[in-house]
Amino acid sequence: MPEQYLKVYQQQVENTLQRMMETVFPPQAGSAVARAAAYSLLGGGKRVRGVLTLAASALVCGDAAPAESYAAALEMLHCYSLIHDDLPCMDNDDFRRGRPSCHKAFGETTALLAGDALLTAAFETLCRNENGGEKNARAVQLLAHAAGPHGMVLGQELDLAAEETPVDEAGLLLIHTNKTGRLLRAAVGLGAIAAGASGAQAAALDGYAERIGMVFQIVDDILDVTATSEELGKPIGSDAENNKTTFVTLKGIDAARAEAERLTREACVLLQNTFGKSADFLCNYAQKLVERSN
Amino acid sequence: MPEQYLKVYQQQVENTLQRMMETVFPPQAGSAVARAAAYSLLGGGKRVRGVLTLAASALVCGDAAPAESYAAALEMLHCYSLIHDDLPCMDNDDFRRGRPSCHKAFGETTALLAGDALLTAAFETLCRNENGGEKNARAVQLLAHAAGPHGMVLGQELDLAAEETPVDEAGLLLIHTNKTGRLLRAAVGLGAIAAGASGAQAAALDGYAERIGMVFQIVDDILDVTATSEELGKPIGSDAENNKTTFVTLKGIDAARAEAERLTREACVLLQNTFGKSADFLCNYAQKLVERSN
Repeated sequence: MPEQYLKVYQQQVENTLQRMMETVFPPQAGSAVARAAAYSLLGGGKRVRGVLTLAASALVCGDAAPAESYAAALEMLHCYSLIHDDLPCMDNDDFRRGRPSCHKAFGETTALLAGDALLTAAFETLCRNENGGEKNARAVQLLAHAAGPHGMVLGQELDLAAEETPVDEAGLLLIHTNKTGRLLRAAVGLGAIAAGASGAQAAALDGYAERIGMVFQIVDDILDVTATSEELGKPIGSDAENNKTTFVTLKGIDAARAEAERLTREACVLLQNTFGKSADFLCNYAQKLVERSN
Repeated sequence: MPEQYLKVYQQQVENTLQRMMETVFPPQAGSAVARAAAYSLLGGGKRVRGVLTLAASALVCGDAAPAESYAAALEMLHCYSLIHDDLPCMDNDDFRRGRPSCHKAFGETTALLAGDALLTAAFETLCRNENGGEKNARAVQLLAHAAGPHGMVLGQELDLAAEETPVDEAGLLLIHTNKTGRLLRAAVGLGAIAAGASGAQAAALDGYAERIGMVFQIVDDILDVTATSEELGKPIGSDAENNKTTFVTLKGIDAARAEAERLTREACVLLQNTFGKSADFLCNYAQKLVERSN
């Protein structure tokens, strides 16, 4: 049952992205930037952020549809961050999801512009729905604040600085709450706005997302040590190679995994206290994220 | 008198930018990205776009204040485009406004992130005012559409492609209506939204901006041939060096200047027909842009 829902949500994200790309991007025949954006955006992925947005909306108002354009916007924004992160002056990664990264496939100039275009188009997409200006303007503020210089960009900056100067646990938490955590919290926050959530509902969703954001990163760090490169679609062991502080280097694999499981339980209790049995999908989803192998 | 207004508007843009930077960026002490953004954003400039936004609002409702955050957002967005345009994989320019370009002063990684941060912060800034969600959501849609893959980014893509394959006059117009023109039209469009303009008022402002956008580019092309590098704060003759098609290579200097003057007159007539004598400031400003030496 939850597995079915997951597929439905993932498909709903894909369909919306496809539709929005045709609206907010020029035809791919005439624009390499549009081709590069479509290559990276529509190239698969788990759609964790989009699924969270849709599921949060459905949890609050029983309908995921009002959150469709928010889910698509978030995936566009996430995609821009991956394209720019992979650039030579950033992480210089040649592969992403088992395929050449955007700049390897289209060149650096086109990849830079594709990222810029996706970031800009994300904000246009946020406003392309029937939710009304009040909700959409709140959605813009939420996403811009989460993704901007006080949020994700700050996380990227701190992460790059940590390659020069190793961080302690507090420093590591600061990186991840910004680099990964803020967008995951924005995901449920956007769903809450679309669905007209009460303050208490939005707070429960935010607490859930804060915890699974951390879990997400802990599991990433564990997989970088335990998975195969086929499973991840990118080289493994890159953290150790770069001498990076991770949850695994700080705590060891077992304690890191125990912490991920504790946070997942906490996240679920928070949701169940507010939403009861309706929280099942998001609780199962959190469990799935902690057990994932890629 | 108009000269005084211009200084007032420019100062109003600077003050708003200063205030917004303190709100939407983390303290510069802890963030190189924030320092780089401030370096590029607060490093002077004519504030043409911000002034147009404020003046359009004042023309429609007698008050520039409702458009302050829109003017600041537009200058942030324009600034991001300059930072990314200067990057090695784009135009590879070492100087901007007589100072080292952002990546020369702060390194490529920080410059890339500063551009990303300014673009994102622009959308947050658009919503930080008392205009209400309806107006702000319209402002977001207008700016995102003008700056995104159907607008400015498309113009950048076409401009870079034109370095490989020379364009004809239609191709040149297509580049400039997108690369420069769309943001200038967005400038008056945002002022119109802030001030609650009627359809006719907004259309007159848009027709004005469309023309001065073209004038702006024609004058740039002329100055690249006639100005000194001290006047421009960057190397001159770069167009000829890159074998670029410009209004000057297509028409010669005299015909290009005549075209700029004709468009400026048309722009002013359009405004005067709708706004009468109140259009004086924007008409004088258009005249000033055509006569500028940098």
